[in-house]
Amino acid sequence: MKNILLAQSGGPSAAINSTIAGAFERALCSGNIDRIYGAINGIKGVLAGRIIDLGPILNNTEALNLLCVTPAAALGSCRLKLGDPATEPEQYEQILEVFRRYNIGFFVYVGGNDSMDTVYKLSQYLIEHGVDDIKVMGAPKTIDNDLCEIDHSPGFGSAAKYIGTTLSEILCDVNVYDIPAVTIVEVMGRDAGWLAASSCLTRLGGSEGPQLIYLPEVPFSEERFIEDVTIELSKRPAVLVVASEGIRDQNGEYVGTSYKNGVVDVFGHQYLAGVGKYLESVVKEQIGCKVRSIELNLMQRCSAHLASATDLAESKMLGAAAVEKALEGVSGHMSTLIRTSNSPYTIKIDSVPIEKIANKEKTVPREWITERGNNVTNAMLTYLLPLIQGEVKLQHEHGLPVHLKLY
Amino acid sequence: MKNILLAQSGGPSAAINSTIAGAFERALCSGNIDRIYGAINGIKGVLAGRIIDLGPILNNTEALNLLCVTPAAALGSCRLKLGDPATEPEQYEQILEVFRRYNIGFFVYVGGNDSMDTVYKLSQYLIEHGVDDIKVMGAPKTIDNDLCEIDHSPGFGSAAKYIGTTLSEILCDVNVYDIPAVTIVEVMGRDAGWLAASSCLTRLGGSEGPQLIYLPEVPFSEERFIEDVTIELSKRPAVLVVASEGIRDQNGEYVGTSYKNGVVDVFGHQYLAGVGKYLESVVKEQIGCKVRSIELNLMQRCSAHLASATDLAESKMLGAAAVEKALEGVSGHMSTLIRTSNSPYTIKIDSVPIEKIANKEKTVPREWITERGNNVTNAMLTYLLPLIQGEVKLQHEHGLPVHLKLY
Repeated sequence: MKNILLAQSGGPSAAINSTIAGAFERALCSGNIDRIYGAINGIKGVLAGRIIDLGPILNNTEALNLLCVTPAAALGSCRLKLGDPATEPEQYEQILEVFRRYNIGFFVYVGGNDSMDTVYKLSQYLIEHGVDDIKVMGAPKTIDNDLCEIDHSPGFGSAAKYIGTTLSEILCDVNVYDIPAVTIVEVMGRDAGWLAASSCLTRLGGSEGPQLIYLPEVPFSEERFIEDVTIELSKRPAVLVVASEGIRDQNGEYVGTSYKNGVVDVFGHQYLAGVGKYLESVVKEQIGCKVRSIELNLMQRCSAHLASATDLAESKMLGAAAVEKALEGVSGHMSTLIRTSNSPYTIKIDSVPIEKIANKEKTVPREWITERGNNVTNAMLTYLLPLIQGEVKLQHEHGLPVHLKLY
Repeated sequence: MKNILLAQSGGPSAAINSTIAGAFERALCSGNIDRIYGAINGIKGVLAGRIIDLGPILNNTEALNLLCVTPAAALGSCRLKLGDPATEPEQYEQILEVFRRYNIGFFVYVGGNDSMDTVYKLSQYLIEHGVDDIKVMGAPKTIDNDLCEIDHSPGFGSAAKYIGTTLSEILCDVNVYDIPAVTIVEVMGRDAGWLAASSCLTRLGGSEGPQLIYLPEVPFSEERFIEDVTIELSKRPAVLVVASEGIRDQNGEYVGTSYKNGVVDVFGHQYLAGVGKYLESVVKEQIGCKVRSIELNLMQRCSAHLASATDLAESKMLGAAAVEKALEGVSGHMSTLIRTSNSPYTIKIDSVPIEKIANKEKTVPREWITERGNNVTNAMLTYLLPLIQGEVKLQHEHGLPVHLKLY
């Protein structure tokens, strides 16, 4: 009987550990898999032979449940892109050697676009070298929600729930004073504006804010931004603006690049700042009112205490489905999720060939963004709503949530 | 029968609305108070006569419970410091006029050090002008925990619970990679390091981080900081640093002032950044490893979804106690909380003359900070532990917590 190897890659999220839990559970129940291994720090750990036996750690429901509500990547992660197998076969030979050493018949890699590139190249390499007793599967994960061929990515729903909850609390905060003030919230998303767009979830509570939402999908104009903010300030004292870190100008250049690249002060210190700080300086200089910028930073991807129960459950299913497909003999695919109905919300789990996904990006449809490009339409809200449903049950000790350590 | 007027002031917190709920409940039950009013935007709203009748909104337990888990200041806030009553009596005359117009016999002002200055001056003014049928009471609130004559301030426990929870999640996140990286978290606290110190709560989960904690109570040396970080980096790849926004150098100057004051780039944009960004630039230049800074910003004071149940319950009691004392005829006092035992944790509620509190500050005892000044001792943990106990029960709608609007 063959063993299975699980690994995680790319940026952490609140849901990626659920996918490992789902894969583990499915492997444990299969009857066709002997040992369940985990590689530490993704493909980097496979290359280095840093492999742990997950069986003794995870073979009880308490540990599995705890794993699901543990943020980040419990097996560690990496950002290593494998070379071209045709010209750089050494890495692949080394991976294969480790697979053989641990008698691996199934490899499940959980990650985003870049990680799916690894799945693609590795599965191609194995096919081309006539290795047909090792099945390689991808399981999706990215808070950015930019994976193709899937309705939404695991991790995104939890990040969206974090953003919706936090923004609704920030709205309470910024509205306590009666003097004009602009608050700018910078949200992750280099090329796709899904996360910034999810700030519209505050509308569910009847809130008017954020009044302005800027995404990378629409060219950003500083002039129009100042116009937008001025108009909003004429209606109310507190204006909340959300901006994707990846907004770009007409020429495709990231907004505030010169600012963000930094200059050096008299002491030689380099300035480091994101688009939020840049827009803050623009408002300060051109409008002159009170202004503050907030970066949701790592919190938006690791706040497991605010995870969406729907997201965690779906992430788990996608981990299980990756193992299921591998057991059926499928290789070079990613497990995927199809929305079959919006109301009631129903889904279907399947898999897609990895070449349709690797290195590709799904951005926000233009028609879900307002004509002026400074907010999103209700179609976005309809899309998002099912993804943030349900709260997770946390285990607390001494007043803080408990997390599981795998290594 | 006289009426009561409630108002909030200073920075928002996750607990200040509980204090209003406690005051409202106590007033409702007294039998000696007719109407329960709220002033919008603190003393500014009193001056402007912006008064609402809270009775019809809050006279049911559902609304009162919702108010307790609503962040920020539901009655709005202000940052107005009243002038000297001897030289600027106009404001006081105006306040008295509004009090008379609304037949106010009791005024409860919820806030921090500055707000207690208002309570002090106003109560003094009334005494000096022979007004003895209006009792003015303060109820404490500040996430900074720097109020004197109280064991800990309402709002602080919730902020500490947010910091402890968030830092333990950030620790999971920063530990996923195996390359050297420094993460710097900037926490609020201009003159007192209580909030930054509360990051030590992650130790409860057996965590090693944050490895370094810098407070305003100990002069900060950039040289020693680089030494500290270098030592920690030699032990592990991921180093987590927490710094109070108010850390100062040997000369008492805020760290990175020149950096934070900003210079102007070629486009005339002014740089705006806090101590976190500054320390990030220092690590980047002097150590050269991967470095990131995170500002907990407004989230640390408005994350009601992570409020401490203990904090909310105590905040409510302190609101009730302020009304209770006013009914007993006390004026110019603040309700206060005394810790009578640490284990089991027990408290006593009382009141103290406001002059002992107004414009004074309680900082972290030097003996609770390590000798080198780069962390806190377990005495701090013992102090903090009871304050973050218990989770709040939130009401969700469409996947997001529901908040109450009072105006």
